[in-house]
Amino acid sequence: MQVALVGVTGYSGMVLYRLLKQHPEIDRIQLYGHVGATTVALKTVAAMYQKETAVIRPFDATAIMRDNAIVFFATSAGITRQLALPFIAAHFPVIDLSGDFRLHDPEQYQRWYQRDPAPATALAQASYGLADMPAPLSTYIANPGCYATATLLGLAPLAQQQLVEPTSIVVDAKSGLSGAGKRATAASHYVAVNDNLSLYKLNQHQHIPEMMQQLQQWWSAIPAIEFTTTLIPVTRGIMATIYAKAKSALTTTQVRAAFTATYHEQPFVQVLPTGMPTIKDVVGSNNCVLGVDYNPVTNTIVVVSVIDNLMKGAAGQAVQNFNRYFDFAVTTGLPTLPVFP
Amino acid sequence: MQVALVGVTGYSGMVLYRLLKQHPEIDRIQLYGHVGATTVALKTVAAMYQKETAVIRPFDATAIMRDNAIVFFATSAGITRQLALPFIAAHFPVIDLSGDFRLHDPEQYQRWYQRDPAPATALAQASYGLADMPAPLSTYIANPGCYATATLLGLAPLAQQQLVEPTSIVVDAKSGLSGAGKRATAASHYVAVNDNLSLYKLNQHQHIPEMMQQLQQWWSAIPAIEFTTTLIPVTRGIMATIYAKAKSALTTTQVRAAFTATYHEQPFVQVLPTGMPTIKDVVGSNNCVLGVDYNPVTNTIVVVSVIDNLMKGAAGQAVQNFNRYFDFAVTTGLPTLPVFP
Amino acid sequence: MQVALVGVTGYSGMVLYRLLKQHPEIDRIQLYGHVGATTVALKTVAAMYQKETAVIRPFDATAIMRDNAIVFFATSAGITRQLALPFIAAHFPVIDLSGDFRLHDPEQYQRWYQRDPAPATALAQASYGLADMPAPLSTYIANPGCYATATLLGLAPLAQQQLVEPTSIVVDAKSGLSGAGKRATAASHYVAVNDNLSLYKLNQHQHIPEMMQQLQQWWSAIPAIEFTTTLIPVTRGIMATIYAKAKSALTTTQVRAAFTATYHEQPFVQVLPTGMPTIKDVVGSNNCVLGVDYNPVTNTIVVVSVIDNLMKGAAGQAVQNFNRYFDFAVTTGLPTLPVFP
Amino acid sequence: MQVALVGVTGYSGMVLYRLLKQHPEIDRIQLYGHVGATTVALKTVAAMYQKETAVIRPFDATAIMRDNAIVFFATSAGITRQLALPFIAAHFPVIDLSGDFRLHDPEQYQRWYQRDPAPATALAQASYGLADMPAPLSTYIANPGCYATATLLGLAPLAQQQLVEPTSIVVDAKSGLSGAGKRATAASHYVAVNDNLSLYKLNQHQHIPEMMQQLQQWWSAIPAIEFTTTLIPVTRGIMATIYAKAKSALTTTQVRAAFTATYHEQPFVQVLPTGMPTIKDVVGSNNCVLGVDYNPVTNTIVVVSVIDNLMKGAAGQAVQNFNRYFDFAVTTGLPTLPVFP
Repeated sequence: MQVALVGVTGYSGMVLYRLLKQHPEIDRIQLYGHVGATTVALKTVAAMYQKETAVIRPFDATAIMRDNAIVFFATSAGITRQLALPFIAAHFPVIDLSGDFRLHDPEQYQRWYQRDPAPATALAQASYGLADMPAPLSTYIANPGCYATATLLGLAPLAQQQLVEPTSIVVDAKSGLSGAGKRATAASHYVAVNDNLSLYKLNQHQHIPEMMQQLQQWWSAIPAIEFTTTLIPVTRGIMATIYAKAKSALTTTQVRAAFTATYHEQPFVQVLPTGMPTIKDVVGSNNCVLGVDYNPVTNTIVVVSVIDNLMKGAAGQAVQNFNRYFDFAVTTGLPTLPVFP
Repeated sequence: MQVALVGVTGYSGMVLYRLLKQHPEIDRIQLYGHVGATTVALKTVAAMYQKETAVIRPFDATAIMRDNAIVFFATSAGITRQLALPFIAAHFPVIDLSGDFRLHDPEQYQRWYQRDPAPATALAQASYGLADMPAPLSTYIANPGCYATATLLGLAPLAQQQLVEPTSIVVDAKSGLSGAGKRATAASHYVAVNDNLSLYKLNQHQHIPEMMQQLQQWWSAIPAIEFTTTLIPVTRGIMATIYAKAKSALTTTQVRAAFTATYHEQPFVQVLPTGMPTIKDVVGSNNCVLGVDYNPVTNTIVVVSVIDNLMKGAAGQAVQNFNRYFDFAVTTGLPTLPVFP
Repeated sequence: MQVALVGVTGYSGMVLYRLLKQHPEIDRIQLYGHVGATTVALKTVAAMYQKETAVIRPFDATAIMRDNAIVFFATSAGITRQLALPFIAAHFPVIDLSGDFRLHDPEQYQRWYQRDPAPATALAQASYGLADMPAPLSTYIANPGCYATATLLGLAPLAQQQLVEPTSIVVDAKSGLSGAGKRATAASHYVAVNDNLSLYKLNQHQHIPEMMQQLQQWWSAIPAIEFTTTLIPVTRGIMATIYAKAKSALTTTQVRAAFTATYHEQPFVQVLPTGMPTIKDVVGSNNCVLGVDYNPVTNTIVVVSVIDNLMKGAAGQAVQNFNRYFDFAVTTGLPTLPVFP
Repeated sequence: MQVALVGVTGYSGMVLYRLLKQHPEIDRIQLYGHVGATTVALKTVAAMYQKETAVIRPFDATAIMRDNAIVFFATSAGITRQLALPFIAAHFPVIDLSGDFRLHDPEQYQRWYQRDPAPATALAQASYGLADMPAPLSTYIANPGCYATATLLGLAPLAQQQLVEPTSIVVDAKSGLSGAGKRATAASHYVAVNDNLSLYKLNQHQHIPEMMQQLQQWWSAIPAIEFTTTLIPVTRGIMATIYAKAKSALTTTQVRAAFTATYHEQPFVQVLPTGMPTIKDVVGSNNCVLGVDYNPVTNTIVVVSVIDNLMKGAAGQAVQNFNRYFDFAVTTGLPTLPVFP
C-alpha cells in the first residue's frame, strides 16, 4: 500500500512520517508540500533525517488520488479547508490532523479560529475520529486535537454515565512545548520556558469547542467547562487534571469501575488500579493513562489523563484511525510501551 | 544585632543564611545544628559556600538566648515541638520555618503530620505569620508553609469579601523540586522529574489544615477546599491556579478591584493589570504576583498566584516577619526584583 | 524464536525489553531476575508497563539454555563474571551489556572495576562487539560501554589511518543522567542536576581501559587519551567532543573523506556533510552521527560524536549484535530515525 | 551618586539594573534607550519589574554627562563604537559591556565582528577590565566577554607562570542560553535546546581575539588556542574545561599552588582544594570557581572554570569595575554567595 502525506516539516508531520515508515502495511510514502511547487529533498527540511532521500513534491490532488490509498494532512489550521475539497468530492479517504473539519458548525470555526470555514456541505462529510471511543468513520476523518483527546478520554465515563454535576467541570491542562509548534517566538524561547510555567489562551483555546461538541453529544446537560492551558518546561506530553463535583457521594472504587467499564477493551487506554499517572508513562507511546480519585471531604472527583501530544494527540491517533479505516488490527505499527526513560 | 539560625543545611536554611548575611541590620549570625554536638565548618556541609568559614555549633538554648536577639529555626517537622519550648518559656523571640507551631489544634497536627504535637499551651503562644496579611505578632512566629502562602494570598480577597460559592474552591498547585527537600529518592531522581509531571500527596498534603484554619478565620462558611499538588520540572517556584464559582455574576475588572483593595499597600504583592503571572516573575524575589480572570461562560473566577517557595514561601517571609517584629522597614534586606533570567 | 533477558528493571534492560518486543524475528521473551527466587509480575517492577503481564523468573541457567536461542544480560557490573560461566562452558550465545567481559586482561578489570574479574579462560572466549566496526563475533559478545562506543566511533578513522599525533588526543565527553543509572543519590537529585553541569570520575572512568584496548589494536602508537566525563541536564544522550593535533596539515574535506571511507557502508553511522550534530539528532534511534572539522590555526581536528546512550550505547547495539550473530539484516527491529522532537 | 544605564531590556542590562538598584553607594539610576526618542515606562519593556516605574529616556550624551557620575552601556555590539565617542572626548567614565572597545586592533574587530570598528584613537583610550586580574583602569573600561572571562581566569596562572606547552591549549566551553541573548530563533526555541547540546560558531566565536590579545600579553609564546562553544540546556552559567600539556611533569598539588598564588587575594575567585566546580556553585554570585587536576598518564593539566555569564561574565564584573574605578571596597553591592539552589 502506498500513502500520501501532505506536510512533513512540522512536529506532527515528522512524527507521523516516522510511524508510517515503520508501519508493516505501508510500502511507500509520497510526501507533498502544501505551498508552492519546488521539489526539495526531505533532508533539506528535516535535518534529523540525514540519510532520508525522499523528495517533497508540490501539492497535486489528482496525482495523490491516482497513486495512493489515502492521504494524511499534517498541515496547520486553514490549509485543508481549501486543499481537501477535491478529495471530499471524490470520496477519497483523508485523515486530517488539523482543526479545519472538527467542528460541524461553520460559525463556531469562524469564531474560534478567526478564519473562514470550509463549506458546510464539506464539513458534514467529516467524522470526528476520537479513536479510543470507537464510532463509525466516514472517508473524511478529522483527527481530534491534543488537549481535546486527553480531556475527552478523561471525561467520557463521567459524562456518559452522568456521574457529575454538569456545571462543575474544571480542567487544568498542562502541555509541553511541542504542542505549540515550531515557530520561534518570545514565548517559545528557551529562557522563557525553562524553569517556568505560563498560562496562555485563557478561555480562548480553539480546542474548547470540539470538546463541547463531543461532550454535549454524550450528555446534553453539560453547558460548558472551565478549561485552562499551562505551558510546562517539557518537550512532549499533556496532563489534564480534571475536577468535578460528584452528583451523589460515591467511592474511588466506584469511579474507577466506571472508567474500567468504558475502556476495558481499548488496548491504548489504561486505567490505573492505584495512584496517578505521570507524563513519562506515555511519552513515545500511543497510550492514554488515566488515574482517578474521589475526595469525600469536598465531594470531588479528580481524574488525571496523560497522553503524548504528538502520538495519541496527533500522529499516533491518526495511524490508529488509519488502522480502523482499513480494518487492520488497531495496534498495528503503533507502540504500546513508552520510550522511558 | 546578632541572630541565631538553627539548621542551615537544608534549602530553606541556606537561602535564609544568604538573606541574613546581606541584611543591613544584622551584624553577625550564629549557626547551630539541631542534632548532636559536633562542631563542623560550614563549608563542610554546604559546598557552595567555599569561602565561608562560619562554624556550626551544637544546639544550646541558653547560649542562643544569651548571645542573640532572636532565633530562626530552619529545621524539619518534628524538631521545634521539642527544641523550642525553652524559648517559649522565656518569651524569647522565635521565627519557626517548620510546621510544628502552625496549627492551633494539636489533634490536627497529630493527624496531618503523624507525630506527637507540641503542648497545647505552647501552641497557644504562636502566631501564624502570613506576612502580607499583617496581623499582630507574638514572640513565637510560625512561618507559613509555601503552598499555604501562595494559596492564601490568592484566596484572601475572595474569602474576606465573600465573593465565591464557599464549596466550589479548587486549587491546582504546582511546585518545583526544592519544595520537596534534599532527600534523594526515586521521586527526586533527575530522570523521574525531567520532562515529567507527577501528582503527590493527593488530599493528604500537610499544608491543607493550615490553609483551612486561616480561611475559616476569614470566612467560616468555607467547609473545605479541593487541593492538589503537582511536582514540576523546575528547581524553585510555586504556581497555584485557583478556581471558584462566583456567588453572583461579575467582571474581571471587579475581581481585580477586590484584589487591589486588599493588597495596594503591600510592597511584595503585585496584582497584574492584565494577563497571568509566570513563575519567573518572582524567582529570587520575596514577591507574590497575582493574576485574575472571570469567565462569564462558566461563572468561574480564576486566580493565579506565584511565589518563590524558598523566598516568600520560606526564608524571605521569615525575614519579612523579622522586619515586622523589630519594626524595620518591611523591605529591608529583601529583594523586590526577581533574579530573571 | 524465543530469547531470554536477565535484568529488566534498569534503564538498559527496560529499553532492551521494548526493542525485543518489537523485533519481528522474536516471538517470545523470557524474563529473569538475577537475584533470589521470587516470581514477580513485570508490572510490579516497571510501573510504565502497566498492561504487561510477563513474569520475571528466578535465574536458572539450565532452563534458559533449554528454552531460548540466546540470552541477554542487562545486569550491573559484577554479575555476569559469576552467572555467565555455564553459558560459556556450553558455548551458548550470550550478549552481555555489562563491563565484565570487555577487558581481555583480568588485572585491568580488577584495577578499574575494583572487583575480582572473571577467569582469564572465560574472558578469552569473549569478543568485543563494537557493532559498527564489524569484526567476527564469538558466542560471547561483550557489548561496549556507552562512552566507549561514542568515542571509538569518533576516533576509529583517525587511529586506523594514523592521521593524528598519537599523544595529543583529548575527549571531552558529556552524558545525560540515564547513563548513571537509577540509583537515587545526592548527585542524581533533580536539584543537583537541573541547570547544572558536573564532572565526575576524572581520569577514573571504567570505560577508559576498553577504549585503550581497542585503540591500541587499531594503532599501537597511541599511549593514552585524556578523557573527561561531564554530567549534563539531559535524560538520554552522549556527546563526545574529540580534539587531536593533525600529523600533518590537511583540510576539513580530507578529514571528512577519511570518515566517509570508514563508514559509508554502515547504515547506523552518519557523517555530516557540514556542521556538527546535536544529541537530538540521535535520541531514540540506534544511530551515531559524526561531524568533523579541521582548524588550520591550531592544526587541530575536532570530531563530535553523538549517540543515544541507551540505544547505540547499550540496548540498540545489543540488538544490532543479535542481528549480526544470527545473520538477520542489521537494521531489523532497530529505529534509524530519532524520536524527534 | 547617580549613574546612567544605556540599554536595560537585554539580559545583561536587566541584571545590571538589579545590581545597581541594590548598590549602597548609588542613589539613583537614569535609564536610557539607545534607539529613537520614545519615552516608555520600564514596566512596558521588562515585564518582571511590574512595580518599577522608572522611565527610559531617549539617548542624550550631554544630559548623561551633566546628571551622572558614570555611564554603563549594556548594548549590543555595534552601538558604543558610535554612541560612546562624546564620552571619550570628554574623558567621562564609561563601563561598556559590549565588545566594541575590547580589541586594540581595529582590523581584528572588523574581522571578528564583521562591522566597522571604532576609531583607532578611541580604541587606544580603552582598558580591558578583567576585574580579578587587577590592572590600572582608564576612564573607558571595556568589560570582558563572558567566555573570555571564564577562560582567561582559568588560563592566567598557566600562562603567566609558563607551565604548559603553549601550542597545546584546548578549551571546551559550555554556556547556558542567556549567553546567546533574547532573540527568538530556531536555535533558541525550547524544543531545540531542551534535552540537547549543540556546538556553534566553531572557530569563529568573537571572544577568541580578546582572549588571544590578553594571553599573548601574559605570554607571547602562545600562538593560538583551540576554543569550542557548546550550548547547554541551562539558563545561566558557563563552564570552561581547559586542557593543556604540562611543560614538565608536575603534580595536582603544584598546579593548585600556582592558582592559589595568583588568586589568594581575590575575594571573588575560589580555587577548590579538591574536586571540580559545578555551574551552580556560582549562579547568582559574582564568583569564579576553579578546580584543577594533573593527569600523569597523559601529562595533561585540566582546569575547570565556572562563572555566571550574566554576573561575573557581564553585569557583576561591570559593578566590580565600577567599585574599582571609584575605589569602593571591591565586594560592595556584589553577592559572594550563589543563589543556590
